[in-house]
Amino acid sequence: MVTVNRNYLKLPGSYLFSTIGKKVNAYQSENPDKKIIRLGIGDVTQPLAPAIIESLHEGVEEMAHAETFHGYAPDLGYEFLRSAISRNDYQARGCDISEDEIFVSDGAKSDSGNIQEIFGIDNKVAVCDPVYPVYVDTNVMAGRSGEYNPGRENFDGIIYMPCREENGFLPEFPSEVPDLIYLCFPNNPTGSAITKDELQKWVDYANQNGSVIIYDAAYEAYISEENIPHSIYECDGAKTCAIELKSFSKNAGFTGVRLGYTVVPKALERDGVKLHSLWARRHGTKFNGAPYIVQKAGAAVYSEAGKAQLKEQVAYYMRNAKVIYEGLSEAGFSVSGGVNAPYIWLKTPDRMTSWEFFDYLLEKVNVVGTPGSGFGAHGEGYFRLTAFGTYENTVEAIERMKKM
Amino acid sequence: MVTVNRNYLKLPGSYLFSTIGKKVNAYQSENPDKKIIRLGIGDVTQPLAPAIIESLHEGVEEMAHAETFHGYAPDLGYEFLRSAISRNDYQARGCDISEDEIFVSDGAKSDSGNIQEIFGIDNKVAVCDPVYPVYVDTNVMAGRSGEYNPGRENFDGIIYMPCREENGFLPEFPSEVPDLIYLCFPNNPTGSAITKDELQKWVDYANQNGSVIIYDAAYEAYISEENIPHSIYECDGAKTCAIELKSFSKNAGFTGVRLGYTVVPKALERDGVKLHSLWARRHGTKFNGAPYIVQKAGAAVYSEAGKAQLKEQVAYYMRNAKVIYEGLSEAGFSVSGGVNAPYIWLKTPDRMTSWEFFDYLLEKVNVVGTPGSGFGAHGEGYFRLTAFGTYENTVEAIERMKKM
Repeated sequence: MVTVNRNYLKLPGSYLFSTIGKKVNAYQSENPDKKIIRLGIGDVTQPLAPAIIESLHEGVEEMAHAETFHGYAPDLGYEFLRSAISRNDYQARGCDISEDEIFVSDGAKSDSGNIQEIFGIDNKVAVCDPVYPVYVDTNVMAGRSGEYNPGRENFDGIIYMPCREENGFLPEFPSEVPDLIYLCFPNNPTGSAITKDELQKWVDYANQNGSVIIYDAAYEAYISEENIPHSIYECDGAKTCAIELKSFSKNAGFTGVRLGYTVVPKALERDGVKLHSLWARRHGTKFNGAPYIVQKAGAAVYSEAGKAQLKEQVAYYMRNAKVIYEGLSEAGFSVSGGVNAPYIWLKTPDRMTSWEFFDYLLEKVNVVGTPGSGFGAHGEGYFRLTAFGTYENTVEAIERMKKM
Repeated sequence: MVTVNRNYLKLPGSYLFSTIGKKVNAYQSENPDKKIIRLGIGDVTQPLAPAIIESLHEGVEEMAHAETFHGYAPDLGYEFLRSAISRNDYQARGCDISEDEIFVSDGAKSDSGNIQEIFGIDNKVAVCDPVYPVYVDTNVMAGRSGEYNPGRENFDGIIYMPCREENGFLPEFPSEVPDLIYLCFPNNPTGSAITKDELQKWVDYANQNGSVIIYDAAYEAYISEENIPHSIYECDGAKTCAIELKSFSKNAGFTGVRLGYTVVPKALERDGVKLHSLWARRHGTKFNGAPYIVQKAGAAVYSEAGKAQLKEQVAYYMRNAKVIYEGLSEAGFSVSGGVNAPYIWLKTPDRMTSWEFFDYLLEKVNVVGTPGSGFGAHGEGYFRLTAFGTYENTVEAIERMKKM
């Protein structure tokens, strides 16, 4: 008789964004004249930059002619893209990552969900709390957790590292040494960043303990301060303990285009095996490459025109972040994030729960954000606003909140 | 200490296409004047059809403007594509598959590798032999097999169903009842097709035994005969035992564009759980949608212009299949396939092994094919030629083979 993967049944329903959607729709239909401003979801709103559009059109045209048609892509991704990544994202920053350590994919969500698969089921997983839900959920689905505790809103067998105001929204070394450590900086949802010195401590910790860090650098393009590393490989020894995930979604607006990459250094070995060869095997067996036209568009991100246009696009969103951060600070809210990240993390006023504040904000000023508790137990009492709206809407939302 | 997924280490190296590549390169560099014709790999050579190109350009243009920009896609895929699939691939054939039973993905390779994940590790897997390697490899990686036997070229714990000349290249019910049964028709690599009556027997078998059939219909567009089903859902009762995988790679030349879909009927339940909800959870957690422009191009496949152009494209390849089939039959080879599939399956002459015939063909007439033994132990003594080359090259290759 067929059995199902019962680990899936441990997952509580994925209610966060569907609950938000239902509440917003219900409010809108009762109040059809109200203009609701959405600063909840992490999706971008600006169109693709002209250099990307031009490259996409060119790629499409190549696919129209037999001489320039592209079928199956190489397993790791096209060399032209991997070499642009290696040069711009690594060599230019003094990180010795070669193009054959880079695996091009259809996005960091897939990679961050799939990467756990090359590890044994018995590994102990540590995550920040609050956290991007994919890291935990995919390890639960693979069987690396016990049951879910509805009261405590966490899973047995997962090590949670609380990130709260008290510790500057940075994780501390847990009492039990983890095998796999998921870190995301600049952070979603808190918008916090980690300095190079602080990250170096984690790299040293992982090397000393034989752990592996899975480092999600999806928001690297939003870093504005000097002492914040853009890649974990800026730290000494990271090549023997860290895998880095990178997205084109937020630096280039590719949320609907789908492109990302993962770096697995050849020097990274555990349990007598090179992790590079395991990930290569997974990539070659369960994936068939990102579309040629998308990889070509990815290369345009690194062209001179592309770089200039995307710098402006990131600046557009960071102006929003500043509007939110400064506006809410002035209004007396306790806010963090927003300086090296497109997310502002807000302490709910008057000891409201995250969901109470959600309802309050929706009903009082028709602004939608994301309850912090949706990202984990230690997100309770916090609230996430994103800088990915339009400037006009962002200004209006903050004006409304100031008047609450 | 970190452990790796040691199931990966059971896999023998993926030598087939790399060995072919090395042999061909070595021969070419020793014989730089020879014109080698490649009829080995299953990649298409014709450019995308005009209706697809037009749709891609339109999609790119939409992404250039804020009003028409598309960010994250809906989890299951855009409704416009899922409804086109439901109407054209199912309703039009009398199969009652609704659009919310269709999951759009980045291709059938990913889906055929990932689908096993929703099942328990203890399920017994059956595959045809020879077979597309992804079905077996991904189950080995998940831990559903024992060790590899180099002599017998198979894995302990996997049920192999030999498909040879004696049984018309169709599998027979194995002595041990499997839980998961992978079937691919029209078949890669043998090019064989299954009649509706024969497939109905498998559907009945699965329903009687509580098994699940994973049905790969990637080559459905090449069916030319009347009594061959285009979908397993043409069989009575398939909705309670079958998942269907579908690709846009071969019917529309999307090998480098990446689009596919999987059907999981809502009526399909095992172990007390709806498989639809498990696949929805996997899709939503580890995947973030196919690119908008690619989904839009997928919808153009179902437009009137798209249908007409792709019918011609398939006819172009099937003319090649006919050239190969008839030419080699005339020359006295024992051939099968090529009528409802773009693959011709050839018995090697003079009791040569598959690799001996590969070398012989390469050296004597400079034609490259794929050794049948690369697809499994029961592929030994056979050889695959594909119809995906150009017409001119195909004609020349067969003329050369006739003169051997």
